[in-house]
Formats: sequence, structure tokens, C-alpha cells
Amino acid sequence: MTTKKTGSQTVTLACPPSFAGHANVVGKKEGEGPLASSFDYIGTDDTFGESTWEKSESAMQKQALALALNKAGQPASNIDWLFAGDLLNQCIGSSFAARGQEIPFFGLYGACSTMGEGLALASMTLDGGFGEWAGVVVSSHFCTAERQYRTPLEYGGQRTPTAQWTTTAAGAAILAREGPGPYITHVTVGKIVDKGITDTNNMGAAMAPAAYDTISTHLKDTGRAPSYYDLIVTGDLGNLGSELLLELLRQDGLELSNHTDCGMLIFDPQSQDVHCGGSGCGCAASVLTGYLLNGMREGKWNNILFCPTGALHSPTSAFQGESVPGICHAIAISTQRSPQA
Amino acid sequence: MTTKKTGSQTVTLACPPSFAGHANVVGKKEGEGPLASSFDYIGTDDTFGESTWEKSESAMQKQALALALNKAGQPASNIDWLFAGDLLNQCIGSSFAARGQEIPFFGLYGACSTMGEGLALASMTLDGGFGEWAGVVVSSHFCTAERQYRTPLEYGGQRTPTAQWTTTAAGAAILAREGPGPYITHVTVGKIVDKGITDTNNMGAAMAPAAYDTISTHLKDTGRAPSYYDLIVTGDLGNLGSELLLELLRQDGLELSNHTDCGMLIFDPQSQDVHCGGSGCGCAASVLTGYLLNGMREGKWNNILFCPTGALHSPTSAFQGESVPGICHAIAISTQRSPQA
Repeated sequence: MTTKKTGSQTVTLACPPSFAGHANVVGKKEGEGPLASSFDYIGTDDTFGESTWEKSESAMQKQALALALNKAGQPASNIDWLFAGDLLNQCIGSSFAARGQEIPFFGLYGACSTMGEGLALASMTLDGGFGEWAGVVVSSHFCTAERQYRTPLEYGGQRTPTAQWTTTAAGAAILAREGPGPYITHVTVGKIVDKGITDTNNMGAAMAPAAYDTISTHLKDTGRAPSYYDLIVTGDLGNLGSELLLELLRQDGLELSNHTDCGMLIFDPQSQDVHCGGSGCGCAASVLTGYLLNGMREGKWNNILFCPTGALHSPTSAFQGESVPGICHAIAISTQRSPQA
Repeated sequence: MTTKKTGSQTVTLACPPSFAGHANVVGKKEGEGPLASSFDYIGTDDTFGESTWEKSESAMQKQALALALNKAGQPASNIDWLFAGDLLNQCIGSSFAARGQEIPFFGLYGACSTMGEGLALASMTLDGGFGEWAGVVVSSHFCTAERQYRTPLEYGGQRTPTAQWTTTAAGAAILAREGPGPYITHVTVGKIVDKGITDTNNMGAAMAPAAYDTISTHLKDTGRAPSYYDLIVTGDLGNLGSELLLELLRQDGLELSNHTDCGMLIFDPQSQDVHCGGSGCGCAASVLTGYLLNGMREGKWNNILFCPTGALHSPTSAFQGESVPGICHAIAISTQRSPQA
């Protein structure tokens, strides 16, 4: 039976949904990084054939969804619900990508945590009996994000040492009520955590306390030790945020030897000059839908805790002197449908 | 048993959740309109004690949620999930309002349809067995919306005849798995519909086809005639959008004598100079959580189909020549837990 104790943030899914198809589309720089072989499509110039960066981002998202549907062997018309989000004002990356898809649509805003938010809601709707198939698709694009959050590319602004590089990437997953796995067995939905960081070029530090909160809560709610997982993968804390997360957990006596971060995995720190690592909704989404899920299928890992993190601020809130609220959702993924407790 | 047929967009809830508490907070102009007596709190100057309009909007949302929790007799710590959204870039109205609430948080972006999106997801999570209590809160503010979507207020731009007036309002609802009603019995989740309207000052026309699509689908999926409902209430189509909706339904032989629109209800067309009516997430939300649900409790209506509509564009997409994608979600609300078929 599906369980969620009052006061707990974790749902134990009675009928863990299966990843029926997953795919990603990335930009040129991402395709030159260490995870190149795990991407389904690598663009040659980041335009994806479109005349504006916003339309390029939508095109990327559309293509990732089409590839994931194709791998799942399902037409869009079979999908009961589509959950989608991105970083753009009014989430136009998603609504323009979903236009014409003919799938009942839920627009999400969870900043870089959106893949986790979408997988949580998609799993719950399928487990709750509300359909057979659900899709999740998210994206980010370096050029749309720079223009919107920082400065136009032409300005050539210098990046601070703690800055992260917004990934040009879209990731899509199709979940099915039945299937051979990997399965989503638990979801821990995050609360907003804000420790007062006001430097919007240090989002790792702003998001690390949320990751700490959600991961600790997940372990407490499930009674699992960190070592239960082959990998505990945060979204895009980057180098600095990851260090902070490990330090926070260490204060509770938890030593994470199995931690990694999508923002640290996607670019090569030596040759790709991204400072603290990658970021953006597309970062965690493209690493999950390629490197991580492919690795599970190949038998590299059996249990992964996927924890994308988001910074829920805006340029306006920053200009008004506000700090950066963070959030993190944790998704437990297993090759076994009924994993050991 | 909960049912959702493949290909259908409608969920019939097995265990219809009950509105345990609902409240709203509105601005001065809204408080001078015909629905004044249905609002829980009317601000005197639209600042709600804050120094920027964005912070005012968050304050409004926070207060609406607190009032709804109070009416439900529940502390925030009892709420399993909070679904929240607004119109601001990166949805800061919601994330700053939810900061410090200690409730697992799902950020939504559905433009003015967000109250419907939130109620759909909240009902599904409760019906699916994932908790006992869920909250939904959304907001809009005339001054944040004008600055962001159109021109700063100081500019004094003239409004076109088809323009609508963004409502300064927040509405919150607390749903419970058990309770005396009114109940959410069905949800029909909308698809994105775009008929090529590019005039962002004519959002009623952009959203009417989505309302038509979702209402028709709801009636088909449930086998109900329009007359089943005492009221079919669209979100904020305004005068012109409402006319278009009725005309589209008339072409299918459906005559809606029981239609009204939150955007037409909230302001007085004679004395309040709002052109085509009200709009904004807070419009449908504050009309639902006051006038409509209070009316059901008073025995005025037994069955309402609440259909908030959203225009999923952004200033950027408009500048790039894109049309305005629309969406509409339909929420069937009944004073009876097991309404007649």
C-alpha cells in the first residue's frame, strides 16, 4: 500500500512506476564534455535550427520528448499527463514546446529542481491510479539564461569564481505504471530552505542547505543509511555547494562517500572553464536521462538517490536585496521494484 | 474506484476531497467591486505593508494561506503538500510566500489557470492516498503585472478596449481527504490550445478556445449536459472571451445559460473602468474562495464547474512574434460527495 505518514515528506510508492523511455538533447559545449557518449543528440551550434535562443530551447525540449516517446514506443496521444518546466520567464520554453503535443499539461516552476518535482508528481499520479503513462521534460539554455538572469552575451561580462555555467540541455522521461524498470520507489518532496545567501553568483551555497535538509529527511523517513545507495547525486550544487553539503552532513555524523553532483559531472573542470560546474534544469535532467539511467541499465548501479536542487529567486528579488530560497527534491530509483528496506 | 480512461483528460475522484478552509485577500479596487462582501481581507493601499510591489504580492499570498489554514483549523505543519503559483518571473510571489512555511512545496506555472492546476494536483494527491491535507495558493498584483508585462505604472500607458485589468488578489484553499464538503469530484486537465492570437492585449480571445476545448471535453468525458451544473464559471475570459466561448459552444449545439466568468464578476463594468474585465491568477482564485464556495455553503448552488484559464506567453515570446498559447483546467465541485451521474 502507498504510504505517507503525516509529518513525513516521503511517499513510499506502492506500485513503483518504471522508466519506459528517457532521452536528452544537449548543446555543443556539453557534447564536448566527459558525458558526451550518454547524450542522444548533440547540437552543432546551439540554435537547433531556430532564429532566437528561446525558440532554440523549446526546440530542444520538443526533441528530447520526441526521442523519449520513441524509446518508450509510445505516441504522444498515449501519454496521460505531461509535466514540464524551465527557467524562462513564464516558462515559455515548456509551453511552446508542449503546444501541439495534445497532452494534458501541468506547467511547473522549480528552477533547477524541476526534473525532481516533475518525477515526484508523475510517479504520484501513476501510483495513485490516474493513468498509465506520464511524461516529464525540462530544459535550460546557456544563452537564454545569460540574457535573462545576467547580461546579454554580447556584453562579455566576467564570471565570478563561484559562478556556474548554465547547461544547454533538455532531458525527458516517460514513466509507465508497469515495466521492467528502473523504478521510482520513493519520493521526498522538499521544503523551501533559505539561509540568507544573497550572492546570486553563488547558487551552490544557496542550494546546499536545501539539499542537506531533503537528503537528511529522506534518510530519516526511510530509515536508510547513506550507504544504502550506490550513488547520492545532487542536481547542480557544483564544487562549492557540494563541499558545503558534505560539511553539513558531516556535522550530523554522516560521511557521504557515494556523493556526486550532476553539475560536476557534465563538464571537465580542467579543459572547459566553467568555474564551479554546470547548472540549469537541463543539467540534472540530461545527466539523469543519460549517464545515470543508462548506467543502471548496464548494471553499474542498483540504487540511486537523485536530488536535483533549485534556487527560487529572480533578478527582481535579487535587485530588491532578497536572499535566495533553495529547494531540493529526492527521487529514489532502483533496478528492483521492491527494494530491500 | 478512481477512474481515468486512457485518452480521457478527466479523473473521477474515488474519494472526493473536501474544501476544509478557503480565504482570500484583495486590493483596494477589488474591495470596491460587487464582490466586496465575499473577501476576507481588503487592503487599504495595495502595499500590504511592504516596500516593493513584489513583496506586497508575497505578503498577500502568505496572508491568504494563513487565513485559509485558520478556517480549516489546521497548523501549517499538518499540511502534506503546498501547491503555489503566480505570474511573476520565476514565480517569486509564491516561493517567497512559502519560505518559512515548512510545507513540502510544489511550484506551479499555469498563468491565470494556476488555481485550477493546483486544485487538480492537490485533489489527485489526496485521492491517491498521499496524505490528508493539501494547500493551494495563488496570487496576482496589478502593479507587479503592469511593470512586468506592460509598462511601469508611472508611464501611464493607455489601455486598449480589449485589455483586462490584472486583479490584486490572492486566494487559498485547504483540501482535506475527509470533511463535510463542498467536494472536488472530477478534474479535467487541459491541453495547450493556440489559435494564433498575437495581440497580448486580447487575452480573452487567446484563452477562449482553450476553455471551449476543456469544457467540451469535460462534458464528453463525464456524459453530463451543461445544465447539470448550476454554474459553469470560467476564470478570466472577460466580456469578449466569454462571448467567443459561448459562440464556439453554440456551433456544437450547446447553449450555456448558466455561464459566468470570474473576470466579469469581480469588477463593476459601469463604475470601475476595467474594459473587458478582471484577470490574473488571483481573479479566479479570489472569486472561487469567496463568492463561489460561500454561495455553495449557503445553498445557492449545488454543482459548479470551475474553469480557470491561462495565457502561457511572455513579453519575450510576444516580442518574437509568437502567438499566445492558452490552457484551461476544469474542476467539478459539488455539495454532494457522490453526485448523481
